[in-house]
Parts: sequence; structure tokens; C-alpha cells
Amino acid sequence: MVVAAAKSEPALQERIVEAIESLRSLLDHKLVTNLAVREQHANITTYLPNEPADAVVFAECTEDVQAIVRICADLDVPVIPWGAGTSLEGHVNAPLGGICVDLSRMNRILAVNTDDLDCVIEPGVTRKRLNEELRDQGLFFPLDPGADASLGGMASTRCSGTNAVRYGTMKDNVLSLKVVTPAGEVLTTATRARKSSAGYDLTRLYVGAEGTLGIITEITLKLHGIPEAISAAVCPFPTVEAACNTVIATIQSGIPVARIELLDEVQVKASNAYAKLDLAETPTLFLEFHGTEANVHEQAQRFGALAAEYGGGPSVFAVKPEERSKLWQARHDAYWSALPLRPGAKAVATDVCVPISRLAECVMETKRDIVEMGLVAPIVGHVGDGNFHTTLMVDVADPDDFAKAKLYMARLIERALAMGGTCTGEHGIGQGKMKYMAAEHGGEALEAMRAIKRALDPKNIMNPGKIVAI
Amino acid sequence: MVVAAAKSEPALQERIVEAIESLRSLLDHKLVTNLAVREQHANITTYLPNEPADAVVFAECTEDVQAIVRICADLDVPVIPWGAGTSLEGHVNAPLGGICVDLSRMNRILAVNTDDLDCVIEPGVTRKRLNEELRDQGLFFPLDPGADASLGGMASTRCSGTNAVRYGTMKDNVLSLKVVTPAGEVLTTATRARKSSAGYDLTRLYVGAEGTLGIITEITLKLHGIPEAISAAVCPFPTVEAACNTVIATIQSGIPVARIELLDEVQVKASNAYAKLDLAETPTLFLEFHGTEANVHEQAQRFGALAAEYGGGPSVFAVKPEERSKLWQARHDAYWSALPLRPGAKAVATDVCVPISRLAECVMETKRDIVEMGLVAPIVGHVGDGNFHTTLMVDVADPDDFAKAKLYMARLIERALAMGGTCTGEHGIGQGKMKYMAAEHGGEALEAMRAIKRALDPKNIMNPGKIVAI
Repeated sequence: MVVAAAKSEPALQERIVEAIESLRSLLDHKLVTNLAVREQHANITTYLPNEPADAVVFAECTEDVQAIVRICADLDVPVIPWGAGTSLEGHVNAPLGGICVDLSRMNRILAVNTDDLDCVIEPGVTRKRLNEELRDQGLFFPLDPGADASLGGMASTRCSGTNAVRYGTMKDNVLSLKVVTPAGEVLTTATRARKSSAGYDLTRLYVGAEGTLGIITEITLKLHGIPEAISAAVCPFPTVEAACNTVIATIQSGIPVARIELLDEVQVKASNAYAKLDLAETPTLFLEFHGTEANVHEQAQRFGALAAEYGGGPSVFAVKPEERSKLWQARHDAYWSALPLRPGAKAVATDVCVPISRLAECVMETKRDIVEMGLVAPIVGHVGDGNFHTTLMVDVADPDDFAKAKLYMARLIERALAMGGTCTGEHGIGQGKMKYMAAEHGGEALEAMRAIKRALDPKNIMNPGKIVAI
Repeated sequence: MVVAAAKSEPALQERIVEAIESLRSLLDHKLVTNLAVREQHANITTYLPNEPADAVVFAECTEDVQAIVRICADLDVPVIPWGAGTSLEGHVNAPLGGICVDLSRMNRILAVNTDDLDCVIEPGVTRKRLNEELRDQGLFFPLDPGADASLGGMASTRCSGTNAVRYGTMKDNVLSLKVVTPAGEVLTTATRARKSSAGYDLTRLYVGAEGTLGIITEITLKLHGIPEAISAAVCPFPTVEAACNTVIATIQSGIPVARIELLDEVQVKASNAYAKLDLAETPTLFLEFHGTEANVHEQAQRFGALAAEYGGGPSVFAVKPEERSKLWQARHDAYWSALPLRPGAKAVATDVCVPISRLAECVMETKRDIVEMGLVAPIVGHVGDGNFHTTLMVDVADPDDFAKAKLYMARLIERALAMGGTCTGEHGIGQGKMKYMAAEHGGEALEAMRAIKRALDPKNIMNPGKIVAI
């Protein structure tokens, strides 16, 4: 009977064609099959190949998502959710083909509960837009990955960014999610209560699941009051090691820095050129302090004293909003500023995170590899969390160059794992890092993840080929 | 064939006897079967009946736990983990019988990584002992549920307590767990990195799982530096509403209070009698501020100004450690201080948590119920999170009294759910709140939880009859 069923079942490509026909009859004006749009909706940000879905559907509400998922579930057709396309590890590729669900039109802010410091939004809202809408109410959502990502994508990759050292990651800032399950049903992971002990933590299970367990269609986020005072600073150091050691001392002494970002001298030079800054081309920390006027002043003073102990400083402060914006824009443009360093090459962002006591050592060994292997790879990092990126410039058309890049990345990840760290602090697994899952987690933990995936998506239709293979 | 298998399979009680024999031959000196010890290891804290396991094994290492679980897995015998016995919802009961695994001898502190602000401990370490060991190193673990609970139990119930408003709950303070799976294998949920996006968040799945998915045998916890300055305060209010509104304003204005606890006038009276305090018998907030000297002073001033707006104050400060200890001991003894209010009755702690904008309303309606139903139920609360408890004194031997208590609890939970809250902010589901899971989560979310339980514990041997029925 099993053999007969297998024989009578149409091949995947035929089932995809059937799904597209059904979707066309149901959601015609929201369906696009032209190649340019499909390619735009697959990986466009790194060395990974572009693997487009067979169709893109622009969902406008939870019911649209349910209808799409139900059609795909009936036909065992892959469903790939898409937010803003800023992911770095091929999360939005469709290696088996299937239907891409573009959520960018689901961009309504459904509620801002000022009294509760939370809001309810659709997943296509981007972080910049959210903060524009919140500003008048004296509130903000702190997480800031640089790119103007969608909040749905940020939740799905367990994103963090420059403010995480103080405000936490998406895991800490999502209160609840509405999710369309792989069967096309809707569930809500939690209430709006600030905390709960009522059963398994479904919120944290879907945060970081990269769309492999369901599609997020609504997000309840914690918000924060805009601080009374904000002060940013740039602090130069003689060496990367001195900068890292100052970061470690800052965290250990409990100064509640809101941002503490490392740029190595290669990155500072690139940023000077790209963002028209005139910083000393030496390892540098970009910082931000949030609090009351008095408290911000006190934090900055204490940081300055620590930096001086390691030969750093003096800090240059940016208090005016436009000065701060210029500074952080330069930091966020690190990726773009690296591109002119090797015209024609692709930029590949690495993403290890280690216990902070190992940070200086990990960064120094990585820099040694970069120099010895003759690579172009400026370093930036959310160093308060022990997380840093190298923007590796790779000529993917040159097999030797590509092989060298892969060797460098493998060595970097092995180094981080050996130091008790992770292969990805915030970018996620996607396709690019599946090969490191066993080394990081071990067989039993990986088997538990597979069991969860099989239990919640038994047909393996939700973003297949990402995180775990089942 | 299914029928034959069922017929040939010995009944549960026979299998339990067989498991005890196997355990005796393997771990003889760690096995206890006398009734007094077994009853001590079942629920002793609330109105729920005491349902002892058939044997208690005092595990001394992860290998012991693996050996116990393997024997029980082979024979389909329930395994119930036990930490310090302070749980409030019957988590440690053995409704089907089985083997209780006492983890209190697994109480070693395996590593304190001062530079990384973390530590690795066994699950039987209690929070007071941990803080005693950390003090000399200038570090502390902030979570404080009142009782001297084991950290394994605190992780398993997603505990929080008085400091959570500033430092978060166990979900926020566990970096990684070692877990013995229902098959007796060992997995580690994460590295020591401060953040990671590497796959499904197994740490957060086991935190709050109440031992239903595996047994925690090692915990990596975030630590914090002991603040430079700590100041505690007691602030009286004319009404519960004024106190709640002051709490809401405090949270909204971003004052980083470390503790903000409500005691209603009934509780203040009970605490005066029990802890020999001389507080005005009116609704009162107990507070604590952490920071630098200057910052603590500033926080207290800002709070005082807000309290005055609602008719509260003046605050009385306790700066000396012994004064602070006396104050917080009185707060922690709220449960015990309620017992003399109705001698012979049992104390049942309720545990709803609502969005903070609804806190005053929820507390006021609950107080009205208490008065109208003629109940004895002082109110205490971690009100900064929207979480409050009523210590309901119930004569469980009197059916009318018990029925009235149940009606009150049901009304309280329905009220909290209707306000967007949860039936349990920090005590957990256990046996006592399973009946509210569907109302809080809805059918689809509950089905997802069941699917996870079935996937990770297919034989349903891990603490069965808690959280979800499968």
C-alpha cells in the first residue's frame, strides 16, 4: 500500500504547479511568478546561491497566510516566509522550490499600550517605522540590527544588535506571538502579562525558529520609555586587546552601557572613507549611555576611568541627536563601507559570540588569521555580549579565494566553539550554518530539536532545509 | 497483536516493584521506601492531596540520574524529580506512583566564572547557599522567591520573585542546562555565550517544563555584581489603589527599582504580629533600589515624588544591611504570618499576573470578592510585574469552606485571564492549574504543547499528570 501511494503521488514540481493554480484562483492579485521578483525574494545578501521559490504571494492578513499554508499543506509543498530580505544565512532561499509568503504588506501597528509599555504589530513592520510611530508617545523599541529589518524576521532569527547589551535580544523583548501553524491553524503563544509560568514557553520556541515551525502573523513587543538623557561617545585605543579588555571591565563593573561597539583599525579606516568621518585610524569603541542626566554623566565618567587604565581615550562625546545619528549610521554602514575595500567581491558577515572573558583572545587570534591568510576582513562587534563580526570580502568566482574564505570561517567557528561560544550570536542558522549544529549542540540536543520539528511540522513543509534536516 | 501486548504487559504497580528491585541492586544505599520519607517528598504545601511516590532515590551525580531514568524508561515507570519541596501546585506529587528522584545531594557549585559573570551549579544548590558562596567574590544571584528553593526547582517552575522587576525571571537568568532525557541520555541546551541564534531555544523549553521533559542535572546561571549601594524603603498609602497606581507610574517612568512589593493592610497587620514590626496598618509598598550611591539616591527621590502624587509616603528608609534583612524577611514570611489568622486552616497561595495597566482594577475587584465572600486572604504582590498573590486560608476539611475557596480561585483566574493576564505568574501549573490551561492558551497552543511532550517523552514517564495530559 505504501508503494502504491508513493507511485500515485505526483512529484513535487507537479504539486507546486497545482498549489500555484489554487493560489491563483484564491488570491490572484497577490500572486507573482516572474523570475525577477522570485529572485529578489531569495538570498541576495551573501555568498550563498540564490534559490528562488516558484511563486511569491503577498499576504495581507492572517487569513491570507492560513489560506496559503492550507493549500501547501494539502499538497505537501514548501512554504518560505519572507519579511524584508535582510537575512544573512540563506533563510529565505527555497532549495526545494515552493511558495514564498511575502509578509511586508502586513505592516499595521495594531495597538500601542502606552500604560503597559507594549505594542501589538504585524510582522512586516520594520524597526525604523515602528520607532517613528512610537516617538510621539515617548516610547521606543530598542533592538537595532543595523539593517531596517522587519520585526517578524527579527523575531524569527532571534536578532539582537547594538542595544542588546542593555536591553536584551528578541528573546527578551517578545511578549507573545500569533502563529499560523503548518496545518494552517492559528495559535497564540502567551498573554500580555509580563511573566508567566503557565506551561511550555512557546514564545521562546518560535523566536529564533526561522519560520521552520510556523509563520508569525502578529507580535506583541515590550517597549521602553525614551531615556531622559542619551549620550554617545567614541573612544580610541592603542590595540584591539586594550579595547576588548576595557569592554570586559565595563561589563564586570556593572556600568549599564546601552551600546558598546568595537571597530578595528581596518573598519575605522573604511568608515572614515565611506561615512566621511575623521576618526583616528586605530581600534575604537563606539558607546551610548542612557539614563537621567546625572546618571548618564556618571556612567560616562566611570567608563572613561576604566578606558584610561588600558591606555584608551580620551572619549569624544556626541550629545546632539544629529551627531549621534551620524555616528550610529556610520556604524550601521560597516557592511557597505567594506565593499569598496575589494571591488567586485561579496561581503560575508561572520557572527561568533564567546564568553566575554575569551573575547580579547578570540578577536586577536582571528585578526592573526586574517593577516596570515591575506584576507580583507574588517572587524565590528557587539562586544558587550562577546559577539563580533568580520566582514570578509570574498571573490566567489575564484575557487581558491572561496576555499580560503571557507577555511577561515571554519577556523573562526571552531575557535569560538572551543572557547565555549556559539557559531551565531544573532544572524541565525539558515542554510549557511547547518553544518555546525552538531559540533555546537551535540547529537542529543540536535535530536531533541529534530523531534520538535517533526512533532510540530510532520510534513516538513515550513521553510525546509533550514536549522535542522529531518 | 496490540491486544496481546497489552495483556502480556505487567500492570504498572508490578513494573514499579520491578524498578525498585533494580534500583536497590544498583543504588541500594541511596534508595528509601519508608512512607514518612515518601510523604515528605510529595506535596506538603497546599490544599492538594499528598500523593507519594513508591520510592525515593537520593541521586548524587548525573550518572545516578541516568541510571534511574533508564531503569524507569525500560519499565514505563513514572519518574518525579524533587529539589527542595517548596513548590505550591503539587509538582512533586506522584499521582500514578513511581520513583521520586531527590536531587538535594547534587548541591555542588562546579564553577564560578567571575570574569564572565556566570556560574555552573548542580540543581540541588539552594539560592541562599549560592549567595553565601558568591558574596566573597562580590557577586550575587538576584532571583528570590522567598522560600529557600533549589535552583533546579526554580528553573523548572520558571520562578521569579521579588527581584524580577529589575533582573528578570529564571527564563532570563539561565544560560544553559544539562538535562537527562526521558531515554536516560544527556544533552546540553546551549553554550556559555551570552546570546545565540543557533537553532531552537532548548534552554527556554526546559525552563518552566516542571520536569515533564527531562531532569535538569546542571545549570549555568547569569550572575550580577553586588551593587555599590542598596537602599530599602517602606512607603505607606491611603488605599491599595493609590499604591498600585504609584507602582504603574514608577514602572512607566523607567525608574529601575530592584524590588517593589505590595502588602495590603491585612498583610501588614499579620506581618506586624508575626515579624514584630510596627508599620502603620495601611496598604504599603516595600521597595529596594540598587546602583551607585548617587543613582540610588536619585531613584528614591523620584519614587518619593510619584508616591506623593497619589497621597503616599513619606517613605522610611532602611540602609543598614540588618535593617534591610529584617524587612525582607518579614516580606518573605508573609505566607507564615498568614497562618495565625485562621488557626488550623491551610494557606493556599494564588498567583495571577496581569498587564500592569489592569493591576489596580484586578487587585480591587479581588479584594471586593474577599470581603463579600467572607474570606481570610491577605494580599502580597510583585506588583512591578503585575503579579500578586492572595494567601487564602482554607479549612480543607469543611466542604462548604473548600467549595467557597475554589469558587474564589476560579473567579480570580477568570478575572485575570479576561484582563489579558495569566493564571500563574511564577508558581507554575503542576497539578493545581491544569484545568486552566485551555482557557489561557486555547486549543491550538495546548495541542502544540502536547505534541512537544509526546515528541520528547513518548512514554510519558517524566513527571506525568503535570502541565499537560497526553
